[in-house]
Amino acid sequence: MSADPLTDFSRLCVHTITTKGWELEEAVDHYAEVGISGITVWRQWLDRRNASQAGDRIRAAGLEVVSLCRGGFYPAVEEKARKESILDNQRAIEDAATLGAPLVVLVCGAVPGQSLEESRKQITDGIAATLPLAESVGIKLAIEPLHPMYADDRSAINSLASANDICDQLNHPLVGIAFDVYHLWWDPELEEQTRRTAEANRFFAYHVCDWMTPTHDLLNDRGLMGEGCIDLRGIRAMVEQNGFHGMIEVEVFSNRWWNKPTAEFLKAIQHAYLHHT
Amino acid sequence: MSADPLTDFSRLCVHTITTKGWELEEAVDHYAEVGISGITVWRQWLDRRNASQAGDRIRAAGLEVVSLCRGGFYPAVEEKARKESILDNQRAIEDAATLGAPLVVLVCGAVPGQSLEESRKQITDGIAATLPLAESVGIKLAIEPLHPMYADDRSAINSLASANDICDQLNHPLVGIAFDVYHLWWDPELEEQTRRTAEANRFFAYHVCDWMTPTHDLLNDRGLMGEGCIDLRGIRAMVEQNGFHGMIEVEVFSNRWWNKPTAEFLKAIQHAYLHHT
Repeated sequence: MSADPLTDFSRLCVHTITTKGWELEEAVDHYAEVGISGITVWRQWLDRRNASQAGDRIRAAGLEVVSLCRGGFYPAVEEKARKESILDNQRAIEDAATLGAPLVVLVCGAVPGQSLEESRKQITDGIAATLPLAESVGIKLAIEPLHPMYADDRSAINSLASANDICDQLNHPLVGIAFDVYHLWWDPELEEQTRRTAEANRFFAYHVCDWMTPTHDLLNDRGLMGEGCIDLRGIRAMVEQNGFHGMIEVEVFSNRWWNKPTAEFLKAIQHAYLHHT
Repeated sequence: MSADPLTDFSRLCVHTITTKGWELEEAVDHYAEVGISGITVWRQWLDRRNASQAGDRIRAAGLEVVSLCRGGFYPAVEEKARKESILDNQRAIEDAATLGAPLVVLVCGAVPGQSLEESRKQITDGIAATLPLAESVGIKLAIEPLHPMYADDRSAINSLASANDICDQLNHPLVGIAFDVYHLWWDPELEEQTRRTAEANRFFAYHVCDWMTPTHDLLNDRGLMGEGCIDLRGIRAMVEQNGFHGMIEVEVFSNRWWNKPTAEFLKAIQHAYLHHT
């Protein structure tokens, strides 16, 4: 099964980290100029900025604020650090509300040497602790399952099944999942777990990029769509068949692309979006 | 749960690739000298050697030949290439029989851009095609599920569940699984799938090393046991509780260690085996 090509940019969202050569204002102006529809703002782009004004600026340019990236990193050996993490996640939720982003993406965290079971428990407790605030401001929280190669220090949630299990435990309409093809494409249970995600109304976000062969760096060697081996149209067909028709968010960490002029990269993103996504 | 420390080297096996600075004869002499009990021979160590004499040499030194590493790489787009792979796997099985190794480890293969479902089908067909020969010489075949970061071009079998599924399909007493902590430690289903493996009498081999934080290279930055975050004693307790008491095979690909004198590395392996495995 393969999705029909995308023919316009009405569902194209770009993460500010993807075009990290640009400050927020530059990104907004460039995205708007070429007809991109959405932006996901990474938190460091709000440093030394008024989030409310940033949101107004984005909307005035005709862009939709898709999400704020990223909260999470709940697990820690010391209780003090876990409490600080909850405070930081509360700030992220408040910032999302001020910015006008409906969603905070969660990279949930892990601690090398601490059992993944314990980290998952701390993640569940950490999210639960922020739910009253999320409810009061109406902000959704999206657990992003991360590729198993990040299980040491980035996330103890490494499959769609595991993310769904945590969502089941929390059992709250504001808690769902951010589905990133880079982290999930290899999973034999992808179809079954995507159905489970959709049926529980927790398919909150969809991130795309590609997997390079070879991959030279575990963090910053992602491919642009079409450069790698992920069956992007097959996966999109699957998620759309399960009812997802939201924004398609381009999140590419790539030293190779970051070394080129950012405007050239943005042009390549638009081409890859139409021809390979 | 944590296993008791290992107190001698009666279950210690080393892969020739781990001490890759040494030719086969040097490895055998060094292993025997320090009391290591087993050796897993990688195929390139049989190049330009008579496998029968190599086996005799190993046994004469008092070492057990634990396995031949590695067959596999069945999937290919072209049928011709798939047929060549089957021929190569038949050579591996014959070499194992000649060497006196009871087992061939299979790194099953994958093709970037070919669906993982298709690759898994080609793997199943490829193994099936070699079973008559394996039967005739009594050689076991161990599917080694590989970490999902190798799903692009090394193996389409990326979890213990997936390896068990293939074994179920082949349903043959000579087809089982090589369990490598590096590939599997992150899996939330590890306990359940280990039980499944053991109950089906297909827990054929156990490989150890460690996961480094950070990992600088996807292939050759494995840690020696104790250097990383894998709960080695917890996993060993689990596999032993499920009835595995066979060789513990040290398989470390590490540019960092390979840059040191090999004898120094072997000493570190023995220390890590007693103190961290």
